Amino acid sequence: MNRRELINQIRLKQSYLCVGLDTDLSKIPTYLQQQADPVFAFNKAIIDATKDLCVAYKINTAFYEAMGLPGWQAMQKTVAYIPKDILTIADAKRGDIGNTSTQYAKAFFEAFSFDAITVAPYMGADSVKPFLAYKDKWTILLGLTSNEGAADFELQQMGEEKLYEKVLRTAAAWDTNDNLMFVIGATQAGEFENIRRTVPNHFFLVPGVGAQGGSLKEISQKAMNKDVGLLVNASRAIIYASGKEDFAEAARKAAQEYQAEMASYL
Amino acid sequence: MNRRELINQIRLKQSYLCVGLDTDLSKIPTYLQQQADPVFAFNKAIIDATKDLCVAYKINTAFYEAMGLPGWQAMQKTVAYIPKDILTIADAKRGDIGNTSTQYAKAFFEAFSFDAITVAPYMGADSVKPFLAYKDKWTILLGLTSNEGAADFELQQMGEEKLYEKVLRTAAAWDTNDNLMFVIGATQAGEFENIRRTVPNHFFLVPGVGAQGGSLKEISQKAMNKDVGLLVNASRAIIYASGKEDFAEAARKAAQEYQAEMASYL
Repeated sequence: MNRRELINQIRLKQSYLCVGLDTDLSKIPTYLQQQADPVFAFNKAIIDATKDLCVAYKINTAFYEAMGLPGWQAMQKTVAYIPKDILTIADAKRGDIGNTSTQYAKAFFEAFSFDAITVAPYMGADSVKPFLAYKDKWTILLGLTSNEGAADFELQQMGEEKLYEKVLRTAAAWDTNDNLMFVIGATQAGEFENIRRTVPNHFFLVPGVGAQGGSLKEISQKAMNKDVGLLVNASRAIIYASGKEDFAEAARKAAQEYQAEMASYL
Repeated sequence: MNRRELINQIRLKQSYLCVGLDTDLSKIPTYLQQQADPVFAFNKAIIDATKDLCVAYKINTAFYEAMGLPGWQAMQKTVAYIPKDILTIADAKRGDIGNTSTQYAKAFFEAFSFDAITVAPYMGADSVKPFLAYKDKWTILLGLTSNEGAADFELQQMGEEKLYEKVLRTAAAWDTNDNLMFVIGATQAGEFENIRRTVPNHFFLVPGVGAQGGSLKEISQKAMNKDVGLLVNASRAIIYASGKEDFAEAARKAAQEYQAEMASYL
């Protein structure tokens, strides 16, 4: 899905919602636990309940890896089940020397057929470019993350700018195929306007609303651009809106609230 | 395997060699391709041929992930096959917000039973501490990597020090269980003495000798400490020493050369 198609989907659905499938076996309703693949059964119900309300699903690979092989199987089935007009993001935060990043790109873009992957910037250009080389896929680089630890390095001063600003500015120059986005945490409200000045045109994947406390209103007002330029992710606030048999219905209701609020900002 | 046990193994084997199992299906001998699990068959032969010469095996997870589910199966069998007195390292470069890093720690330390994992520092303390919380396991944090891209951010000045120095200094203070190591690339010779001054006691996992061109002699002379403090990794130079039926024998010969040179520095 290229940039034009993504913007069209956002306009069509009046939504820039990304639903995070951080599916944790211990948190899904007990009656599903008896299924052959409870994680996929849960994801399938969530996707059915929310697919008209969101433009992306983000699969947090850690939760699947933690289950060992059955987790990877559940992930594969989930990606295959998501309708083709919805962006699939592997939230995998990979990144390594060039020949290794090439293998990660192959893993997520080919073996698992994701449309996008999150990538860590620490190791620099040759760790990121193998992902960018897939022209019809998206690379979503960590910029300023939503967690407390962002203060340790990302927000530290590096010469005349902060480390995360240097990452944004440096990586924007690698983006020759218009297929780079940045992760910007919703909890970092004080930095939004500065971030939008630094990279005016790029899309941001914004985690941190809901359970982590970021404000959808604030990020929308301060960081939206003419092409919207935002995918706002909610995971726990949607998929665990109810822990009971009505989880899918409750997830739909939570997603509807996000979508309605988003429509009011578009 | 704790620090004392690791040092004992190094003294016993007169080796601080780590063999990197970056096993690429397209590079293993054709006659193995007909086996049910060619990657495991290849790894098994390499382990049998080198296990008395090394103290660690490093599995580069990217190469396994690129194969999809069969890759994860091959990885699981490989870890299980490695003798218990040899350190198993998942070279996975993971790292995310706290609750997600906890899932990654569970994946590699529990589901796959690795002794150690490499972790990316960009997201700060709460992305690293869930790994360190496993007291009998090792967290190996990226410090200064061996690739060209290290110049983009790691080697940039952050106040009075470079970013990677800040990472080393900051993370050393998190190491309350004596289970933290750092990745230091062998190609970064100019920085070794400075690095050893910054973190005098920590073990370094050193990739970049062999195919990437770093010098075993130089890193050994400049960065060894009283407990040795080094695990030097070679991947391609050992496992692909021959691409033919004699690959295991050739791997043993290459590993013997590293071990003999290491013995001379101990």
